[in-house]
Amino acid sequence: MLSEFDLIKEYFQRPRHAAAPPVALGIGDDCALLAPTPGMQTAISSDMLVEGRHFFAGADALKLGHKSLAVNLSDLAAMGARPVGFTLALALPAAERDWLQGFSQGLFALADAFNIELIGGDTTRGPLNICITVFGEVAPGRALRRGAALAGDDIWISGTLGDARLALADLRGELAQPLDAASQRSAAARLHTPVPRVELGMLLAGQGIAHAAIDISDGLIGDLGHILKLSHVGATLDVDALPAGDILATRDTALRRAYSAAGGDDYELCFTAPASAREAVLALAGSVATPVTRVGRIEAQAGLRLVDAGGAPLELQLAGFDHFTS
Amino acid sequence: MLSEFDLIKEYFQRPRHAAAPPVALGIGDDCALLAPTPGMQTAISSDMLVEGRHFFAGADALKLGHKSLAVNLSDLAAMGARPVGFTLALALPAAERDWLQGFSQGLFALADAFNIELIGGDTTRGPLNICITVFGEVAPGRALRRGAALAGDDIWISGTLGDARLALADLRGELAQPLDAASQRSAAARLHTPVPRVELGMLLAGQGIAHAAIDISDGLIGDLGHILKLSHVGATLDVDALPAGDILATRDTALRRAYSAAGGDDYELCFTAPASAREAVLALAGSVATPVTRVGRIEAQAGLRLVDAGGAPLELQLAGFDHFTS
Repeated sequence: MLSEFDLIKEYFQRPRHAAAPPVALGIGDDCALLAPTPGMQTAISSDMLVEGRHFFAGADALKLGHKSLAVNLSDLAAMGARPVGFTLALALPAAERDWLQGFSQGLFALADAFNIELIGGDTTRGPLNICITVFGEVAPGRALRRGAALAGDDIWISGTLGDARLALADLRGELAQPLDAASQRSAAARLHTPVPRVELGMLLAGQGIAHAAIDISDGLIGDLGHILKLSHVGATLDVDALPAGDILATRDTALRRAYSAAGGDDYELCFTAPASAREAVLALAGSVATPVTRVGRIEAQAGLRLVDAGGAPLELQLAGFDHFTS
Repeated sequence: MLSEFDLIKEYFQRPRHAAAPPVALGIGDDCALLAPTPGMQTAISSDMLVEGRHFFAGADALKLGHKSLAVNLSDLAAMGARPVGFTLALALPAAERDWLQGFSQGLFALADAFNIELIGGDTTRGPLNICITVFGEVAPGRALRRGAALAGDDIWISGTLGDARLALADLRGELAQPLDAASQRSAAARLHTPVPRVELGMLLAGQGIAHAAIDISDGLIGDLGHILKLSHVGATLDVDALPAGDILATRDTALRRAYSAAGGDDYELCFTAPASAREAVLALAGSVATPVTRVGRIEAQAGLRLVDAGGAPLELQLAGFDHFTS
């Protein structure tokens, strides 16, 4: 039977990768050690994924490895921090080789894409639970804070929204008109293997162009709401300007509005920047091949006003996802 | 019903504490920010506690709050790092106010004792699971590494061993002679509210007196084994010299030997130091009122040799705890 130490050694310890700067010491001691780049701040975020809550029982292990790290990297992206490493704490019902092989493969493929390393963690037996804590670096005063939006700022969205929610609805059998096989594959990729907008976040922070940012994990309206609350501002959001995902864009208006405005699992960035920076934002996003769309404006008046393409008020019955009330 | 955001705000967010150096930004954004003390390394450790595995279902929430942080601080102690902050990811079956009140009280009482703050994390619904990642600071080259033991070093143990295991055995009804009420209370305190040896670890590292160290969480023999393996050395351990806990010391020799050598949940430090440093070790430990006991010696010959008080070889059928094979 696979012991805890064999499990770590076989699937998670990669000695030749473990100590590239700023990682001074990786897996295998009581603690990992980071040697922070002089003058830089360390950005830290922690996300916990639970079976039956964040993913279905029996979910593909490789995709789960990818997504577990992706949602954490998305938090670094929203701060504008450069990823440097992460810890993984893992509770498993049993030490199954197939699962471990797939999970670690998905995890390390994404880690390698961002040139970061697993530096420590914990494994134990228990109901499947994946807790990753990720570390990044950002220059003092450069981090993109939720509370930094200013009245007059444009509201921008990276990429597209809603296809992840569409895939989930399809999996749950909630769609009156189910997805065809090709659409299913395309939408499911958005749900299971989101790509965190790390380069965009780093450039927005590094060049001092954006004011506030957040990553869209619980649905745009809920997440934008955090920016508004912490910045003590309001906003008008053009719901019809929201960039719907490729598959969602083919569905009816009501579904498109609902899932792009309040879908969840998008892992795109919502950020604000002064109107004077419009061309700079577009140039910067273009330099990392990330589409960005202007979808509204920050205003001094509190509250979030949803409007349609013609500027008329929209009433959508929507709310951000909450783990304890839904 | 208590929402995720209300839950965090009500039980875990303490604004006036959240941004003392080196914490530049606490709870409430996409990431927390640390501003590392110039020239210092960041020590990081992550532990996951699962109901039914690390604690009984229905365990006292206040003690659980204490222990969840204590086991992480113990890892910092074993590295000799000064604690600076921690993140908490928490999966809960339901948002129960009584439980949250107790858990956060136990957690913050210990955090306050070490003047550290909760800087971020995650909450979700799911089978009870507590994942804490802790951060500390240590000067480059000073961290107490598992692989740094040298032949000729003394082996030292802080405090006493085995009472936590004794309490567990009693709770499980494994003892032929159960504990009386007073003994139960005393031993249970060692099991449920361990006190991490942070000051001792910091002094041992800061003054450069110790070579290797580890915290004893899975039983001394198993944990010392990690030092031996990574240091490429062996050792002779005087099992009868092991400092048994107050209650364990009153039991028979076989139980005393077994639980002090391979009990688990002790959260004491096992460290090695050159024989020339004996007086310095005793003086340093005395300065933080932490008893330390010399229990053996590191040797060039591989393997761990257990002996009794007379120096005769002892055969104990013992092994460190493993989450996937036990």
